[in-house]
Amino acid sequence: MDSIDTDATHDTSSKMALDALRQMVAQQAAFPQRPLPTERDLAVDFGVSRRAIRRALAVLEAEGHIWRRQGKGTFVGPTPPSAAMSFAKLSSRTNFSEVMEARIYLEPALASLAALRASGEQMAILRRLAERTTHQQHASEPDAEGIELWDSALHRAIAEAAGNRLMLDIFEMLDAIRLDPAWRDLRQRARNTDRLSTYSHDHHDIVGAIESRDPAKAATAMRGHLRALQQALDHVIQQDLEASV
Amino acid sequence: MDSIDTDATHDTSSKMALDALRQMVAQQAAFPQRPLPTERDLAVDFGVSRRAIRRALAVLEAEGHIWRRQGKGTFVGPTPPSAAMSFAKLSSRTNFSEVMEARIYLEPALASLAALRASGEQMAILRRLAERTTHQQHASEPDAEGIELWDSALHRAIAEAAGNRLMLDIFEMLDAIRLDPAWRDLRQRARNTDRLSTYSHDHHDIVGAIESRDPAKAATAMRGHLRALQQALDHVIQQDLEASV
Repeated sequence: MDSIDTDATHDTSSKMALDALRQMVAQQAAFPQRPLPTERDLAVDFGVSRRAIRRALAVLEAEGHIWRRQGKGTFVGPTPPSAAMSFAKLSSRTNFSEVMEARIYLEPALASLAALRASGEQMAILRRLAERTTHQQHASEPDAEGIELWDSALHRAIAEAAGNRLMLDIFEMLDAIRLDPAWRDLRQRARNTDRLSTYSHDHHDIVGAIESRDPAKAATAMRGHLRALQQALDHVIQQDLEASV
Repeated sequence: MDSIDTDATHDTSSKMALDALRQMVAQQAAFPQRPLPTERDLAVDFGVSRRAIRRALAVLEAEGHIWRRQGKGTFVGPTPPSAAMSFAKLSSRTNFSEVMEARIYLEPALASLAALRASGEQMAILRRLAERTTHQQHASEPDAEGIELWDSALHRAIAEAAGNRLMLDIFEMLDAIRLDPAWRDLRQRARNTDRLSTYSHDHHDIVGAIESRDPAKAATAMRGHLRALQQALDHVIQQDLEASV
């Protein structure tokens, strides 16, 4: 069949196949585990060549609407993360605002678990780190790298005190994405003396709630802290947008 | 120096080095980013051979108290996940009860985001899937594989409707770990007709809250559903423990 295809009929039949496949994909969105019919069956159903089907599938795959697994078939939806998928790949599929949103849900949970589970030794570490973030803020010269280092160390120590290895791994993954150099400048501009003083105050509130074994208060303090950070970042982005008009 | 070491003095000095290193590691737990001194410096400080230091470090590394990175040095704490770390590796570092706990924090967040963001098309998909989980439960013969398939599809569709690619990837990672065949038997025994009917009722509550755009109610319904599942699993584990005494 393929050999009869001229370029003109091919273009038309690929477009027809693409439109029909888009409808099929929309209808099958609820069934990500069920493969689409084979190329051969699709060609028969739509009355076009297999080559037209292949071209249409290539478009849908490039758009991220379908994905294929060798020997298994073609499936609806973006490629799911496979067992071999790495953090680097995951990081390339996300963006700054998604990471911030994920932190706002994950870290309050970690703070409340830390309030329930932190050992005396871990509490002492949290207290020391909270004090270091205050020192950083009061340093005569602002030291962006030092601020980030100690801030990240405190958030990580809370995640560790939560006592769930899997959630700590997820935290570290988000923290690695967050520290992407491309976002460093944005974060630096979102900091100013007033805000730094607020953040350091937040850190003491969070650690205080963990020390007093109050999971709800620890979660609330962490959520407030991250929402303030998110707002400061949104504010800087908004200023950039307005300056560019 | 190493060449003078007899086996006897070596054993003693390795043990001495190990004790001293354990203290150093405990003190440095707050500073996961700062490397330990070099092997040479540690040998001088503790007055033992470098070979004794190397043996002591090997023990601490095997215990997961320190980790080394070529050219960077030795650090306190378990190996952090690297950019190249895969989901398969992550899955090998966790366990069933950690996954269940992580779900209890992640999925209510996804349900509340879905209530805010689900499109009309996504709502229709959620409704269809909730109805399918009810059909599965009312089937004349219980079909464990079918129940798992439709249950997983509904939870995944909620995660997708939440509109955060990163959080969807994290959900899929947890879902893949959860479906580990080793845990299949445990889950199957945690199901019985009463509980299945409760779960199906829960699914309709969650989808109903999403449809009425009520994020708090959606989160509460999802949290209640997962806590009930967690309790059913704990109950089965408890029965096994008692039967084994």
